[in-house]
Amino acid sequence: METTLSKIDIAPVSVEHMKNAQARLDILTKPIGSLGMLEEFVKRLAGIYNTDMPLMPKKVVFTFAGDHGVCAEGVSAFPAEVTPQMVINILRGGAAINVLARHAGADVVVVDAGVNYDFPVTVGLINKKVAHGTKNMAKGPAMSKEEAIKSIEIGITLAHEYKEKGYRMFGTGDMGIGNTTPSAAIASVITGKPAAQVTGRGTGIDDKVHKHKISVIEMAISVNKPNSSDPIDVLSKVGGAEIGAIAGLCLGAAQRAIPVVIDGFISTAGALIAYCINPMVGQYLFAGHKSQEIGHIVMLEFMKLRPILDLDLRLGEGTGAVMAMTLIDSGLKIYREMATFQEAGVSEKE
Amino acid sequence: METTLSKIDIAPVSVEHMKNAQARLDILTKPIGSLGMLEEFVKRLAGIYNTDMPLMPKKVVFTFAGDHGVCAEGVSAFPAEVTPQMVINILRGGAAINVLARHAGADVVVVDAGVNYDFPVTVGLINKKVAHGTKNMAKGPAMSKEEAIKSIEIGITLAHEYKEKGYRMFGTGDMGIGNTTPSAAIASVITGKPAAQVTGRGTGIDDKVHKHKISVIEMAISVNKPNSSDPIDVLSKVGGAEIGAIAGLCLGAAQRAIPVVIDGFISTAGALIAYCINPMVGQYLFAGHKSQEIGHIVMLEFMKLRPILDLDLRLGEGTGAVMAMTLIDSGLKIYREMATFQEAGVSEKE
Repeated sequence: METTLSKIDIAPVSVEHMKNAQARLDILTKPIGSLGMLEEFVKRLAGIYNTDMPLMPKKVVFTFAGDHGVCAEGVSAFPAEVTPQMVINILRGGAAINVLARHAGADVVVVDAGVNYDFPVTVGLINKKVAHGTKNMAKGPAMSKEEAIKSIEIGITLAHEYKEKGYRMFGTGDMGIGNTTPSAAIASVITGKPAAQVTGRGTGIDDKVHKHKISVIEMAISVNKPNSSDPIDVLSKVGGAEIGAIAGLCLGAAQRAIPVVIDGFISTAGALIAYCINPMVGQYLFAGHKSQEIGHIVMLEFMKLRPILDLDLRLGEGTGAVMAMTLIDSGLKIYREMATFQEAGVSEKE
Repeated sequence: METTLSKIDIAPVSVEHMKNAQARLDILTKPIGSLGMLEEFVKRLAGIYNTDMPLMPKKVVFTFAGDHGVCAEGVSAFPAEVTPQMVINILRGGAAINVLARHAGADVVVVDAGVNYDFPVTVGLINKKVAHGTKNMAKGPAMSKEEAIKSIEIGITLAHEYKEKGYRMFGTGDMGIGNTTPSAAIASVITGKPAAQVTGRGTGIDDKVHKHKISVIEMAISVNKPNSSDPIDVLSKVGGAEIGAIAGLCLGAAQRAIPVVIDGFISTAGALIAYCINPMVGQYLFAGHKSQEIGHIVMLEFMKLRPILDLDLRLGEGTGAVMAMTLIDSGLKIYREMATFQEAGVSEKE
C-alpha cells in the first residue's frame, strides 16, 4: 500500500477548458474580470471537470471523526466524551454542519475514522474505525504506520464510492476533541514554523492552557522526530485518523477529477498531508475559509491556496466548506445563466 | 423636505434582544463564539427586528439606475448607452444580479432614478426618474438641491412600500455608466482623502484614463466646492440620482427597522450620504463585500462597517449584497435550527 500511495496518479486539470471558460466569461454582460474569484471558481471547475460547460454539481460533505490520546495532556476545553456525543448530534441533524449543509444543498456523511467509543449500529454512521483513538503523541507515535495508511485509504475509498453515487463536489470536515493539537503539529513539521506560530486556542482554551498546548506539541515533535519529507511518517507520529481520512479524500477526489472544498484548520492539515504525497492534488482543492486558528493561513500559503471566506469561524465539522460551496455554485450559475452581450443587445467596451 | 430629511427619526436597535440572542447562541452545540461573524449577524438582526427569534426574512434587492453627465469627460470604459441597455437586460433576467439574486432567494426591483433614456412602458421597471441623467459635475453641480432631495425620497418611499409588501431585508444595487466617478468624489469629500486615494478603475480603464478620471474628480470638487458637513450639498454637487436613491433606501429602511445589505462602491457612497444625514443608520447596515475599487474600504471604515465577503468583485448591480444575504441567512438558520447542549445531550466546556 505504501507503494500505491506514493504512486497515486493525478492528472493535471485541463488548461484548454480553463481558457475556453474564460473566453465565455468575457462575453457575458459584465465588465471583464468584474466577478473576481467567482470567475476563478468557474475556470478551475471547467479545468477539473474537463468540460466547457460544467453542470451544477451534486455535493456532499464528509465529517470524519476521531479521538486523540493527547487529550490526556489537558490540551482541550472540552472533555473527550464530546466526540461521540457530537457524532450522534450530527447524525440526528442538530449540529451546525447539518444546518449549513442543508442551506448549501449538500448532503452530510459522518464517518467514524477512529473514535474512542463503540457506537451501536447507528443509522447513517459509516464505520471505518482504524483505532479507538490515537495514542498520546507526547509520549510516542499517535498511530502505527499501518494505521496511518489505513486512515488514508478510508478517504480514498469513499471518494471513489461517492463519485460512483453521482456526487461531483466534496467538502471535508472533522469532529474530534483535541484535534487542533495534532493539526498544529503537522503544520509545524511540514511548514517548518515553530509550534508557537501555528498553535491556536482550539475550542477556547485560556492563556495558560494555550502555553501548555504549545509545549505538548513541541514535546510530541521532539519525542517522535517525524521526518518532514515523509508525509506518512508525519501523519502516523503526530497526526490522527480523521486527518488521514481527509488526506485520503483529497487524493481520491483528485484521482477521479472531483473538486474538494476543504474546511478549516484540521481539514487543511489533512489536505497538506495529501499535498505532500502528491502536490498535483492542489489543483483540485478549494480553500473554503480562513480559520481563526493562527496556523491555518500558514498551511494555506504553503499550498498557495486563497481562502474564499474570512468570517472568523473556528468550528470545523465542514461548516466553512459548505458555506463556500454556495459561493462556488454562484459562480457556476453566473456562467451557465447570464446573457452574453450579443444576446442582450448590450454595447461592448469602447 | 430639507427639514424633514434632517429630522429623520431612527431608533437605536434593541440591546436587550442582542444580549438575549447571544445567550441563546452560547447554548447551541458549538464552542462559544466559534461561528464568528455569523453570530454577529444574528445578534444584530435580533436587535434590529426587536425580537429574540427573528424569522427568515423575505428579501429584495433594489437596483437603482442613473446616468452621469460627467461621462462627457471620458471617464468610463463603456459608452453611456449601456445604462438603459443593461436596465433592459436586468428586466429580462439576463444580468449577473438576476442570477445571483435567484440563487440567494431575493427578488430584484429595478428603479429608473435618472436614466438618460425614455423607456417605453416596461413591465417591472419602476419609473422614478428625477432627471435625464445628471449634469457634468466637472463644470457645475450634477443636480439641483431639489433633484438631490427628490432622489433621496425615491428610496425612502420604496423602503416604506416594500416593508408594507412583507419584505424584511433589503439589498442595494446600482447601474449607471460613469457612476464610480461621482462615488469617488463623494468618498473624497466626506472622508477627506485626496481623490487619488479613493479613485479606482471602474469597469476597466487603463492608466491614462485613470489619471484623467482623478483630475476630473479634482476639478469637480474645486469647481463646486461641496460642503463636506452638508450631505445633501455633496450629493447634489458631485453625486447622482441612483446614489441619492440608495441613501434614501438606507434611511427609510432604518426608520422602519429593516436591515440593509449594501453592495460595493456606489452603494456605499449612497450609504455614506445616509450615514451623514443620520449616523444611526449605521446600526441597520451590513456591508455585503469589499470591492476592488480602492475607495470602497475607506468609506466602510469611515462608517465602521466590516465587509462580509472579499472576492475581488467590482460589478455592482447589487451582486455583492445578495451573495452576502445567503451568509446572513446561514447565521439565522444556525440560530433557529441548531440543537442546544441540553437537547443533544452533549457535555459542556470543562
